[in-house]
Amino acid sequence: MAEGRLTYRSAGVDLDAADRAKNRLKSLVAATRDAHTLSELGSFGGLYQVPDGLHRPVLVSSADGVGTKLKLAFRTGRHGTVGQCLVNHCVNDIVVQGARPLFFLDYLAVGALDESVITEVVGGIAVACRENGCALLGGETAQMPDFYDPGEYDLAGFIVGVVERERLVDGSTVSPGDVLLGLASSGLHTNGYTLARRIVFDVMGLSADDEMPGTERPVADELLAVHRSYLRVLWPLLEAGSLQALAHITGGGIPGNLPRVLPAGLGAVVDRAAWDVPPVFRALQRGGGVDRFEMDRVFNMGIGMVAVVRPALADQVAAAIRGSGLDVWILGQVEPGEGVRYVG
Amino acid sequence: MAEGRLTYRSAGVDLDAADRAKNRLKSLVAATRDAHTLSELGSFGGLYQVPDGLHRPVLVSSADGVGTKLKLAFRTGRHGTVGQCLVNHCVNDIVVQGARPLFFLDYLAVGALDESVITEVVGGIAVACRENGCALLGGETAQMPDFYDPGEYDLAGFIVGVVERERLVDGSTVSPGDVLLGLASSGLHTNGYTLARRIVFDVMGLSADDEMPGTERPVADELLAVHRSYLRVLWPLLEAGSLQALAHITGGGIPGNLPRVLPAGLGAVVDRAAWDVPPVFRALQRGGGVDRFEMDRVFNMGIGMVAVVRPALADQVAAAIRGSGLDVWILGQVEPGEGVRYVG
Repeated sequence: MAEGRLTYRSAGVDLDAADRAKNRLKSLVAATRDAHTLSELGSFGGLYQVPDGLHRPVLVSSADGVGTKLKLAFRTGRHGTVGQCLVNHCVNDIVVQGARPLFFLDYLAVGALDESVITEVVGGIAVACRENGCALLGGETAQMPDFYDPGEYDLAGFIVGVVERERLVDGSTVSPGDVLLGLASSGLHTNGYTLARRIVFDVMGLSADDEMPGTERPVADELLAVHRSYLRVLWPLLEAGSLQALAHITGGGIPGNLPRVLPAGLGAVVDRAAWDVPPVFRALQRGGGVDRFEMDRVFNMGIGMVAVVRPALADQVAAAIRGSGLDVWILGQVEPGEGVRYVG
Repeated sequence: MAEGRLTYRSAGVDLDAADRAKNRLKSLVAATRDAHTLSELGSFGGLYQVPDGLHRPVLVSSADGVGTKLKLAFRTGRHGTVGQCLVNHCVNDIVVQGARPLFFLDYLAVGALDESVITEVVGGIAVACRENGCALLGGETAQMPDFYDPGEYDLAGFIVGVVERERLVDGSTVSPGDVLLGLASSGLHTNGYTLARRIVFDVMGLSADDEMPGTERPVADELLAVHRSYLRVLWPLLEAGSLQALAHITGGGIPGNLPRVLPAGLGAVVDRAAWDVPPVFRALQRGGGVDRFEMDRVFNMGIGMVAVVRPALADQVAAAIRGSGLDVWILGQVEPGEGVRYVG
């Protein structure tokens, strides 16, 4: 190339590397295909045949990111789990409306294109897609050299699921006295990382390999724990019609998310003494001197999903969840009013 | 707040501002709703009822970003059009398979949360959704203060459309001798901006307000021109079954995109003299001393969509496109072989 002649590559975008990365991803993606997946990777749009036998199918769709949990991946060089967090987050966002996932697409924006990092990230996405019975239908890998530092990236995902209109779970049947069941989270899931990182690395002065106080595990393991998918546990309960409402506890915590699925005129009372807040949250609260109210609004505090059930079913549903190997607690109940009122 | 007590807001994430922005967006989003949209903004997943009367509906889905065209929005403070580019890009990616759009979701990741910028960006998305008859079903606005500088953001989109399986356009019927029609682009669309910005601002030393040489328009207007949607122009031709294949000319140019829709064993010959390359591309080529081969692979060179039609229909289809007010040229034809061979 003559001096002074510009190419796309000299400006920081390598189309050949993008093609190579795409080819490495093909087998990962292929493992998530099912009989409804009509397209190969590389077509302009991914093709997915609407499953037969549905009477009035409603598509349920959600978009999400991983937030600054990604900074943990950059710091530790462990890129294999953030994709799982992303998929599981999206799955939970549609399960709460009674839908099962059909397909998923990702958006991965990178600075310099590192094929091994991309393969690790998308590998995590593919693993979680398989686990959730969801086709990885397509995606976009964008090279944006002056947006992201080398080795850094942003990651977003989009999911589409389906539910019979008659089986939609929208909380409209929730009544005062209905019981709140809290399902255990696996850690911070994907929320509050800007505050958590500030506390852990800046205020407490820990490194990723140090023990997170009270947890007997390294900071990296606690903060990179995979966002749990509740699909497998909740699906039999949805099929049995045992759930009046479900709230995925993400940014905003229980106070920010539970009211989204309660009818107008109804609120909830939550007993703080009802469950054991995991040590990682206690360490963050102490380390940052964070108010409990602020903790409740930023973090899930150990509850990743709230299920609203009729009082007569509460014990039976809780036992079924426990039988799936997941901790569950009766957090409180629905009451006239609005918002979430904490006691205890 | 006592000194030393950390809050989410002090760490850079403002949940109240996020709620306010969400409320400002509600009316914009409402204007894109139709009878199939069953959910309001704020539900965990957006709900869209599959339209009735389809025999074997296939969902066609695509994810895309705007790339570093966003840097032009940051530089000029004009945030209203990048959302239109994003939606139109996604629409084109599914139209090429014969699908019409149903719904769209966006992912907007910001540094500091500036409500007016967010409203402008999402406003552009809503405008384009309306224009393309597509519901803005949901989205995610993520606050990531240490990912993005204040006033900067990344933006991705996700579209779902539908087509009858029997009406899928997949290029499988393309034959040697079929004619390539090139439909005019409105500018760079959303590709090649890392190279274009390097040339315009670093090598040519222009500012956004300077005239782009040969165009009689400011650099900002040329580089922010809205990515054209071809839905309106192509839809009657798809309904008439007049098109054998369609290729959206994005990153990779004609050589990178047209072969994606040609059957194995077929390539294409393109006559460079067949159409007028718009002045903006000539200015970039001269300014950066870029090889013509590299230009063809990075930019659309004035052709935003290639339609493959039977020779007997070529004039009639071209006249219909021209009748819609769009420039169109016969670029060449399909031939045995592989890839794109340029002549002229």
